[in-house]
Amino acid sequence: MDKRPIGVFDSGVGGLTVVKEILKVLPSEKIIYIGDTARVPWGTRGKKTIINFSKQLASFLLEKRVKVVVIACHTASSVAFPILKKEIKEPVLGVIGPSLKEVIEKSKNRRVGLIGTPATIKANAWSKGLKKEDSKIKLFSVSCPLFVPLVEEGLIDHRVTQILAKEYLQPLIKKRIDTLILGCTHYPLLKSMIKKTVGDLILINPGQATAKALKKYLIENKLQADHKQPVHYFYFTDLSYQALDNLEMFSGKLGRVRIKGVNLEKL
Amino acid sequence: MDKRPIGVFDSGVGGLTVVKEILKVLPSEKIIYIGDTARVPWGTRGKKTIINFSKQLASFLLEKRVKVVVIACHTASSVAFPILKKEIKEPVLGVIGPSLKEVIEKSKNRRVGLIGTPATIKANAWSKGLKKEDSKIKLFSVSCPLFVPLVEEGLIDHRVTQILAKEYLQPLIKKRIDTLILGCTHYPLLKSMIKKTVGDLILINPGQATAKALKKYLIENKLQADHKQPVHYFYFTDLSYQALDNLEMFSGKLGRVRIKGVNLEKL
Repeated sequence: MDKRPIGVFDSGVGGLTVVKEILKVLPSEKIIYIGDTARVPWGTRGKKTIINFSKQLASFLLEKRVKVVVIACHTASSVAFPILKKEIKEPVLGVIGPSLKEVIEKSKNRRVGLIGTPATIKANAWSKGLKKEDSKIKLFSVSCPLFVPLVEEGLIDHRVTQILAKEYLQPLIKKRIDTLILGCTHYPLLKSMIKKTVGDLILINPGQATAKALKKYLIENKLQADHKQPVHYFYFTDLSYQALDNLEMFSGKLGRVRIKGVNLEKL
Repeated sequence: MDKRPIGVFDSGVGGLTVVKEILKVLPSEKIIYIGDTARVPWGTRGKKTIINFSKQLASFLLEKRVKVVVIACHTASSVAFPILKKEIKEPVLGVIGPSLKEVIEKSKNRRVGLIGTPATIKANAWSKGLKKEDSKIKLFSVSCPLFVPLVEEGLIDHRVTQILAKEYLQPLIKKRIDTLILGCTHYPLLKSMIKKTVGDLILINPGQATAKALKKYLIENKLQADHKQPVHYFYFTDLSYQALDNLEMFSGKLGRVRIKGVNLEKL
């Protein structure tokens, strides 16, 4: 038994879709979340910047004495995970590793699509991970840079989102993929729009496998908590960031949550 | 005569559309530009964050011994200009003040539209400035949060940009404005798309009035330079930021330019 909270960091608000999945399978855990709303989005930035920001947020969580650090952000998981894994003593979990087996199992024809931010696609972490599990798998990737701002503006069912979804996804359909990885925390919110566009492909939301892997890890290491009415703390580096007005779109209803600001200078 | 450079800061790459206007009227000046590509965009963030970032970039320019600080970013001009004006000894120029007279002169029916980022619209700086010049002027504002990512993705002539332009601008047309302020450094790149949408409205690009005001100030205070082949320095907080691949889209061809990185920690 370990009552310490689970730490989750993200570039902004999107990581709350991962928190939602975690609390579905681990309702008695406390979450400490930090979202970098003063510097979001990370997906168009360079490797050095993403690693630098990731280290700052991970340190913040470690100071709060979390029992595990979850990198909810796909960009950070793709670019900074190996470095954080090496440098941090506490266990670190990204969103890619836990989903690899699920992708391999579900794809019948071994032709898999990945959509994500430009930095996620460039990092090649999915491709390397999948090839290790199954050297014959073929990964086809497309970056979808406008999906994040479209979701944050609430244009989830909008015509322009549909047009862009077609443009982004048709090249993948042409590659005859049978499975599509939603490689960004914002994309599960576009699930029905994406389904409309790709038909009956298998969609993978890595947040779900991450939550399951986290649960498995806590059980195996006897690190579970048994909070009856856990209070979750969500920290943001800019409390006035626009998308914070619409947090429940990402997190769903989450019980008792305290929202707090944290100064960038203190990171 | 003053050979020191002109300092220009911006949230990212958009401010280069202002640099372009400055060098059209002041071709013998040297520019030192800093764009915060590690933390762009600023237009969806809170006031405190925008002021904080603006102060850091202004200090960087002052350390480089510029003779004047130009705030190219509309969000920063709207939110942080009064504070920087008070705190900085060197002259500070924003993009709003210089354009007020032009707007008043050009609008016949005194019904003016403004498009900008959410933070620019919320700050109300245009409205206050215009009312001071002409208390009877009516300003109608709309924030266009998706224009910046659309421009940075190069979707300037894309169908989705056209659809969103219609959605953003039709409420302004209904208000019977005769003049429209392009209140963000990215919007001059959308000029022909906006023209298609709004018909024969007068479009105001505040970068042009800012360049003229800067020239007037330098002449009146005998601060002009006479560099024959000036070398301009463009600093960016993230040199790998995607839109840097396409800088000339914003700046046009600018002669001799050196591009350099600057660490956020050093700001």
